[in-house]
Amino acid sequence: MQKKIILTGDRPTGKLHLGHYVGSLQNRVKLQNDYEQFILIADLQALTDNAENPEILGKNIIEVALDYLAVGIDPKISTIFLQSQIRELTELTFYFLNLVTVARLQRNPTVKTEIKQKNFGTSIPVGFFVYPISQAADITLFKANLVPVGEDQLPMIEQANEIVRKFNSLYKPVFTQAQALVPKDAGRLPGIDGQAKMGKSLGNAIYLSDDADTLNKKIMSMFTDPTHLRVEDPGKIEGNTVFTYLDYFAPDKKIVQEMKEHYQKGGLGDVKVKKYLNEILQEILNPIRERREHYSKDLDFVKNIIKSGTQKAQERADKTMQEVRQAMKLDYF
Amino acid sequence: MQKKIILTGDRPTGKLHLGHYVGSLQNRVKLQNDYEQFILIADLQALTDNAENPEILGKNIIEVALDYLAVGIDPKISTIFLQSQIRELTELTFYFLNLVTVARLQRNPTVKTEIKQKNFGTSIPVGFFVYPISQAADITLFKANLVPVGEDQLPMIEQANEIVRKFNSLYKPVFTQAQALVPKDAGRLPGIDGQAKMGKSLGNAIYLSDDADTLNKKIMSMFTDPTHLRVEDPGKIEGNTVFTYLDYFAPDKKIVQEMKEHYQKGGLGDVKVKKYLNEILQEILNPIRERREHYSKDLDFVKNIIKSGTQKAQERADKTMQEVRQAMKLDYF
Repeated sequence: MQKKIILTGDRPTGKLHLGHYVGSLQNRVKLQNDYEQFILIADLQALTDNAENPEILGKNIIEVALDYLAVGIDPKISTIFLQSQIRELTELTFYFLNLVTVARLQRNPTVKTEIKQKNFGTSIPVGFFVYPISQAADITLFKANLVPVGEDQLPMIEQANEIVRKFNSLYKPVFTQAQALVPKDAGRLPGIDGQAKMGKSLGNAIYLSDDADTLNKKIMSMFTDPTHLRVEDPGKIEGNTVFTYLDYFAPDKKIVQEMKEHYQKGGLGDVKVKKYLNEILQEILNPIRERREHYSKDLDFVKNIIKSGTQKAQERADKTMQEVRQAMKLDYF
Repeated sequence: MQKKIILTGDRPTGKLHLGHYVGSLQNRVKLQNDYEQFILIADLQALTDNAENPEILGKNIIEVALDYLAVGIDPKISTIFLQSQIRELTELTFYFLNLVTVARLQRNPTVKTEIKQKNFGTSIPVGFFVYPISQAADITLFKANLVPVGEDQLPMIEQANEIVRKFNSLYKPVFTQAQALVPKDAGRLPGIDGQAKMGKSLGNAIYLSDDADTLNKKIMSMFTDPTHLRVEDPGKIEGNTVFTYLDYFAPDKKIVQEMKEHYQKGGLGDVKVKKYLNEILQEILNPIRERREHYSKDLDFVKNIIKSGTQKAQERADKTMQEVRQAMKLDYF
């Protein structure tokens, strides 16, 4: 039986961090054996709100690819490719633009929220406004069956599937609808400052590429319970980032449970808990750092991985677009 | 010195008519000797509001090309090409989407008017909404210096030039601004029913491919002065379509002047004026019909003209896109 296809990816606007690891990278490493996985480095999508600084993308494409290899994405079985090099994505987007109304886009909750977050005001770039359509092209061009997304991205999958239904009924059944794959235990890792989201732009991220010393310093500066002033005082667990991280990463849940009780009772200092978290995270990040180090020494090799992944993606794109053009009766020559 | 470049074209939604002839075709035949002329058969643009019936485009692509050859467009010096086969147009459109805001598109007067005309209501396809951006890609991909348009299309050129300025200042000066070429004497030919516009969908058009008999019948049914009931009655010239046509097409303006005076005084019947117009139009359309007849017998030849024109356009597109990708730092491989 043919393996089902997964489409996933990241915008190359910076190195990847622990939030990405928890939210998706870990999962991709697991899934790559059972699915055919296409991993998109989404530089075209990143352009929609970075049109003024395309050079930051170029630099980060390699960083993101290094992060992939570092966490254990295997380029022999997963296809890592570069969005901007698959011209068919822009072509398919163009055709899809005719299948969606302006009013429908305006109702998309994800777009609404993101427009608010990005403070575009009334100056929303059209490219950003239409990006659900471009994302539908990403998904459908590779005939993805599964798209791993967070809860907040579910409306994007719905939009893509609407386009699929419209296309199939207008022309020919070229596409299949995709299913959202919302990881069960992958919540959202907070930033080290306790903010709900870890983000490049928020300056509160632990990067997969942070060295041991940087990681240690970040953990030591982590937000805990601001009212927990002396070791002997009782401390709070809720909203205490260090414990949230321990819940995610500690292999021995029993020890964490004991520490929590101790902390709440009083007599357990922040530094001690942080040191424990540091041990655990160093152990997780060590092999990732080592692989990153290893690949960093041969960037040509990394570039070739992206290049050959892109070639493979191109072949798939060509195949789908042949069907698309035939279905749309645009195959004149 | 290098010839200046003209970009022009038509949507392949039907055969071309006398309105097209007066408004642009005539001009293209004249201009093709002094300019490098790219003539776009705009099937992609036609898709924006014909997504449901792509097959009508396929049929009409040949009809439009036949009309071009019939009026005297010389494929040896003018480049006739098919929009949908130049994928770089969709790619460039995609990049341009990031350089325009949604608010700016909403202010475009041409789009506003056309949305009203087409009765989209709130269901405007996104593809239609963004078509000024796609048109900017058509113009700039071929580095057109001149774009022949009607007055009502001037905001489209302004939009394209805004994009050019934005692109050039953000990245590199790849593009030059285009000038609108508004033909001086090419007003708008009314329909045979006296309506201001001749249109396929209005059923009031004289096609370049109409045979002698059809042409004669259409002229005989033309709207004149509805109060001019008897030959001896005085008749009105204003709004009298037959005289409007004579103003456009009669080679001898003196005869037309005399006829007008006679008609206004009374004693000149509609049929007589119509017969005179018929003579003139038959003489204009005869050689066009003959050439059309000639080419119709060898459709493979016509297809090859489109094909080799498209190849030439493709070479030009490749060249421009290389510069674009370099300027945008998207030339990774």
